[in-house]
Amino acid sequence: MRGGKLVIIGGAEEKQNDCEILREVVRLAGGKHARVVVMTVATELPIEVGSEYIEVFDRIGVADVRMFDVSTRDAADRASAIKAIEDATCVFFTGGDQVRVTKLLGGTKMDTTLHKRYQEDGLILAGTSAGASMMSSTMIVTGLGETNPKVGIVEMAPGMEFISGVVIDQHFAQRGRYGRLFSAVAQYPHHMGLGIDENTAIVVEGQEFHVIGAGAVSVIDAAHLTYSNLEQVRHGDDLALFGIKMHILPRGSRFHLRDREPIPEADTAKTSERTRGVDNE
Amino acid sequence: MRGGKLVIIGGAEEKQNDCEILREVVRLAGGKHARVVVMTVATELPIEVGSEYIEVFDRIGVADVRMFDVSTRDAADRASAIKAIEDATCVFFTGGDQVRVTKLLGGTKMDTTLHKRYQEDGLILAGTSAGASMMSSTMIVTGLGETNPKVGIVEMAPGMEFISGVVIDQHFAQRGRYGRLFSAVAQYPHHMGLGIDENTAIVVEGQEFHVIGAGAVSVIDAAHLTYSNLEQVRHGDDLALFGIKMHILPRGSRFHLRDREPIPEADTAKTSERTRGVDNE
Repeated sequence: MRGGKLVIIGGAEEKQNDCEILREVVRLAGGKHARVVVMTVATELPIEVGSEYIEVFDRIGVADVRMFDVSTRDAADRASAIKAIEDATCVFFTGGDQVRVTKLLGGTKMDTTLHKRYQEDGLILAGTSAGASMMSSTMIVTGLGETNPKVGIVEMAPGMEFISGVVIDQHFAQRGRYGRLFSAVAQYPHHMGLGIDENTAIVVEGQEFHVIGAGAVSVIDAAHLTYSNLEQVRHGDDLALFGIKMHILPRGSRFHLRDREPIPEADTAKTSERTRGVDNE
Repeated sequence: MRGGKLVIIGGAEEKQNDCEILREVVRLAGGKHARVVVMTVATELPIEVGSEYIEVFDRIGVADVRMFDVSTRDAADRASAIKAIEDATCVFFTGGDQVRVTKLLGGTKMDTTLHKRYQEDGLILAGTSAGASMMSSTMIVTGLGETNPKVGIVEMAPGMEFISGVVIDQHFAQRGRYGRLFSAVAQYPHHMGLGIDENTAIVVEGQEFHVIGAGAVSVIDAAHLTYSNLEQVRHGDDLALFGIKMHILPRGSRFHLRDREPIPEADTAKTSERTRGVDNE
């Protein structure tokens, strides 16, 4: 079987009514035949957080949904951890703290199995909030919201490397995170910034993604700045960034990661109307 | 005498310590010899709001500072109103509701006198928050914060026309207003969006402005979008905008309005350090 898909969710996905994003996760993972593992490794409240997702996936009609928590690296090397991933068609990472994910899973046998099944067996890897941030090679650990771009307002660390070439931020419009994502891509302009709004997600397959959900994805491309003051500034200084390229992508929009360009399509409007229909009914 | 200058402030300018922005307003208006009129037309609490500015300008060392309120259009046609403007070197518009400014001043003799003295006598016109928004030909009246760009989330109206070709938003990073300014410029791409952070200002002279204060100015240029879905969307729909150009301009940055480009300068770093020094000491 070929590679899987990533569903990267900007947090606060709707769970009471149509559950658009979670339903799409389930559809991609086999619908009624989906076998979903809810990974609570990011949170220190695995029971509370996990139970809510078990309940939602059950309501959506997933017969086989189970919770798996990892609170030590040893646990992520055990046969039971590997088997949980090997049996799943979808692994769903909850919110919490993205550093817990890399600290507890990174480099373990469970990590290796996740990558192998994602690359070779079509595994659906979904994550929300912290579970979204950790997807990339370099991730935002923490940072200030509602500020202009500055040096040192965003802390970066290695992520789980399911997707490369991007830095992901979540709760994007809702927490005023433009400034911190601009700061991140200014320092790492080979990465594109993907700011994912709440109740919004990207579905990544190979070098393409498309947008689902209620908000938008802001793509920030700082690869061709005409000027920046990065070489002169010190910790806490304001950043000057000239010539940033941006794209605002609501549901139905498609984007090519390697080309760094949205994909124009004759039937974008049609797709957009169809998904909107589902949302309103 | 030649044309004056605009000082357009993103709200919440610092008033207790160094008062960087208000001091610069005073310096431009003649320093100790400045004659400042605090215009409270935007607010329904003229005494409270006006008194605070009288106190600050007094503390900064302005000998001649007075308050002027306009609560009816008749009042703005009286000889006393015209005289107040004719005697001033600086008119400072407080925050409040920008529609009160256009509704009460627009087209009155006071309005005519403001334009005449700004164009011919070097009058300094300053405004903060609502007093910033009203400066442009088309202004944002109200809109949602912390949302992705959508049709209908931002209400526009004619402004006081002291500056053309731009739409100004204030409290920009602090209130998560990227989405609403993107929405505004998507609908009026001949205007550039200027998002001014709190305690930050632009000083406009002719076709140029430079940035002072603690935050940054975000310039949003939607003149050369590669795609937008504006022709297909209805009220409440999400906007797709591909190929927005953006610039992040902290203190010391300069911008050319007609060219729509930042002005690169050998001494930008020097300027930046000088003003930063003032701020920290």
